[in-house]
Amino acid sequence: MTKKPRSVDLTQVTEWDDGKMRRKDDYLAAEEPLEIRVGEHPLSVTMRTPGHDLELAAGFLFTEGLVQRAEQILRLASLTPVNTPDRGNVVEAELSPEAAPDFEKMRRHFFAASSCGICGKASIDAVRSRLLRPPNADFRLSAELLVRLPDALRSSQDVFERTGGLHAAALFDAGGKLLALREDIGRHNAVDKVIGWALREGRLPLSDCVLLVSGRGGFEIVQKAIVAGVPVVASVSAPSSLAVQLARELRLTLVGFLRGRRFVIYAGDERVVESKPARK
Amino acid sequence: MTKKPRSVDLTQVTEWDDGKMRRKDDYLAAEEPLEIRVGEHPLSVTMRTPGHDLELAAGFLFTEGLVQRAEQILRLASLTPVNTPDRGNVVEAELSPEAAPDFEKMRRHFFAASSCGICGKASIDAVRSRLLRPPNADFRLSAELLVRLPDALRSSQDVFERTGGLHAAALFDAGGKLLALREDIGRHNAVDKVIGWALREGRLPLSDCVLLVSGRGGFEIVQKAIVAGVPVVASVSAPSSLAVQLARELRLTLVGFLRGRRFVIYAGDERVVESKPARK
Repeated sequence: MTKKPRSVDLTQVTEWDDGKMRRKDDYLAAEEPLEIRVGEHPLSVTMRTPGHDLELAAGFLFTEGLVQRAEQILRLASLTPVNTPDRGNVVEAELSPEAAPDFEKMRRHFFAASSCGICGKASIDAVRSRLLRPPNADFRLSAELLVRLPDALRSSQDVFERTGGLHAAALFDAGGKLLALREDIGRHNAVDKVIGWALREGRLPLSDCVLLVSGRGGFEIVQKAIVAGVPVVASVSAPSSLAVQLARELRLTLVGFLRGRRFVIYAGDERVVESKPARK
Repeated sequence: MTKKPRSVDLTQVTEWDDGKMRRKDDYLAAEEPLEIRVGEHPLSVTMRTPGHDLELAAGFLFTEGLVQRAEQILRLASLTPVNTPDRGNVVEAELSPEAAPDFEKMRRHFFAASSCGICGKASIDAVRSRLLRPPNADFRLSAELLVRLPDALRSSQDVFERTGGLHAAALFDAGGKLLALREDIGRHNAVDKVIGWALREGRLPLSDCVLLVSGRGGFEIVQKAIVAGVPVVASVSAPSSLAVQLARELRLTLVGFLRGRRFVIYAGDERVVESKPARK
């Protein structure tokens, strides 16, 4: 089993409150680099909140297209070199021969590979190169169920309450049941963690699930959701124009500003119905 | 001159408000990939909000350590290939010979280079490899001035009001005067844009400035600020543990939760004083 997650740090800070200054203890969301290796090859370094590192690595390998099935990850382990500052911050993956990337080709093509699915990509073309099949067209979700999801997420989110510093990503089934919730300093990491969880649990594709993210719904979130087969992505804040464009092209339902009893549907509004959710 | 920034898109959406569904027009924060090239070599692709692309590229080249001075950027231009979808989304830089990166070496070492300053880096060691000299130790700022900065930022922020989808980064002088404000879908891009502005204006190092960012104060924001010589970084939300650690190591003042008449100092509290700011 993995070590206890180090997702929160306690530190001493100085608070200024309307002219009064005082020292106090405060919680911080932990942020440490995680290096993901395939065999001996470093693949990516991402700044992440420690905890669920194997899920993060699995989700990254999957949403970045290095593997298509869980069985292609033959082994996934945290390396813990003693006497180094990187203790616990390296995950090594062994992939099946057909999935193992051609590092020489990747190098020649460009210094690609990144944590957030976008930056570092070889070229603009590459961003659009992995367009996949549209998610489950028959999935339906009621508006009344949708507006209950943010509370369900918040009531299960633990680190955020203490630090105010973490993003969350949560998977819900069509009945609104919370399947998995992960927190991270990086929204894309939180998404990779829940998708990595699903991959390791044999639940992919997530064709009957809703992905809820705190904060914005950006392009890379929609991209990762599509790779995982998620039909509905909702966020409590605004989506970007490219996220909307990609969701519309690939017929993903994208909901934003999901707050209180209001939300905005930016793409795929046919999946949001007034009645109870009708499963396919 | 560059084209009119395309930082906002207008689109039709479906709003659900307490049971009532209606179609309406809505603004979106624009997000498009920008490829930064050095000569013929693609260096990085970042998802950014169009506008101030040359500043973004200049800031990226500087905060990522490819150039140390403005003069090392011999030429910086938006490429606008006709009949391609990448119209306006490529910036090409020509660097002076001593600054031009050894692409072969970079490739051999790893497929590095990324937009956010962290992900895609070659190894964990690389994250800490560019530690620079501490920022101006004599800079002082009054608490009363500090608490006025978020309002000053908001009153100048235009796109955010319409879309709710953009991060902002602003530079203030020691008297609280706004020097530059940039918005972007990516917080690190907004920071690169203001630093790129300063580089092109001949204002580096920013040893008498405060950098205010919306949202979180993460590691990469502190890293970029230190490269630019900024002594004080403030954010309206929580910093990460690694941001605090880096700020403490390098004696940067890091302020978080700057809201109303309260804030928390996570590092370098000697620069925040009760009286009027005393310049060095």
